[in-house]
Amino acid sequence: MTAGRDRLDRQLDFLLEIDQLKHITRASPIADGSRKENSGEHSWHLAMFALVLADEAGPGVSIDRVIRMLLIHDIVEIDAGDTPIHGTNIDLAAQARAEARAADRLFGMLPPDQAVALRALWEEFEAGETADARFAKALDRCQPPLLNLASGGGSWDDYNVTLDHIDTRVGKPARRGAPALWDRVRARIKPWFDART
Amino acid sequence: MTAGRDRLDRQLDFLLEIDQLKHITRASPIADGSRKENSGEHSWHLAMFALVLADEAGPGVSIDRVIRMLLIHDIVEIDAGDTPIHGTNIDLAAQARAEARAADRLFGMLPPDQAVALRALWEEFEAGETADARFAKALDRCQPPLLNLASGGGSWDDYNVTLDHIDTRVGKPARRGAPALWDRVRARIKPWFDART
Repeated sequence: MTAGRDRLDRQLDFLLEIDQLKHITRASPIADGSRKENSGEHSWHLAMFALVLADEAGPGVSIDRVIRMLLIHDIVEIDAGDTPIHGTNIDLAAQARAEARAADRLFGMLPPDQAVALRALWEEFEAGETADARFAKALDRCQPPLLNLASGGGSWDDYNVTLDHIDTRVGKPARRGAPALWDRVRARIKPWFDART
Repeated sequence: MTAGRDRLDRQLDFLLEIDQLKHITRASPIADGSRKENSGEHSWHLAMFALVLADEAGPGVSIDRVIRMLLIHDIVEIDAGDTPIHGTNIDLAAQARAEARAADRLFGMLPPDQAVALRALWEEFEAGETADARFAKALDRCQPPLLNLASGGGSWDDYNVTLDHIDTRVGKPARRGAPALWDRVRARIKPWFDART
């Protein structure tokens, strides 16, 4: 087997392995509330957010890099599971270790040059320090509230979430990467919380 | 309401509308065969194929444009439904008209500049004549056979498909955009057909 053949087989095996992201169930529903969203379709939806909401990105953001980042950002969940943002009693350090092991195994299935590149892109997203990662994280914070609202409550009801809690846990990182977008999302969801209290 | 506010509202309404792509059921299963794939998660998976299999693209292909094309390529199915590639008695002209109406309505929800740009990108994919579109279409042909094989038969059993039929209907457009990739996919699926006859 030549190196070329081996490279393509590794790539195809990786692409089949990540099919499992379609099994990872998230805390928030799809818009009509009929079921929970899975992390595969969530990753598509977020990439569409980046494509359509490019105007909301800060200076120096590469939308194509953000799209790539969002396509791979949840792949570690195949081994490490999803961590609901409104969940409690979550051991964040243990979760981070599980995700790092998942990244080793999953990205490690690829040819070495691609394994290194995608691992670095995922770590950049996780760190959330570059302009691209801040925008990607902001989109990842803005989409679930819109789905919860569309579905009539979703994970806000399941976790008994308040608008104060959202301002801290969701609004803060969202505003760091896309302040005007977060303000609009917050204006859309506020009446739901006002009506509940 | 300023033009800026209106623009963002149209973008958010479009992004919520396309959530319905998560309801469109395709003919092929996900890899473990437990259920059919939906067109939202399919679009994510294909974008990952483009990202990982960039080496297989012909000269002049922009992988980031291909990724954008694949993210939007099935959105018209929200109104027009999925057309199984191995289906029979399909009125292709009526399907094309339904898809054009769907593109008018769905992309038309966006601000005019984005509506024009995404409509043009979708039409480029459909026509399959540029290098980017040929590669995107080839990936869209290579993924379902890999999922059918992984699941033990999938839509090949449902539609009683032969390898000759695949060579014509799937292999020809796949080879036009990614010949070495198709040859590898065909080598992987051939033993399944050999075992059946």
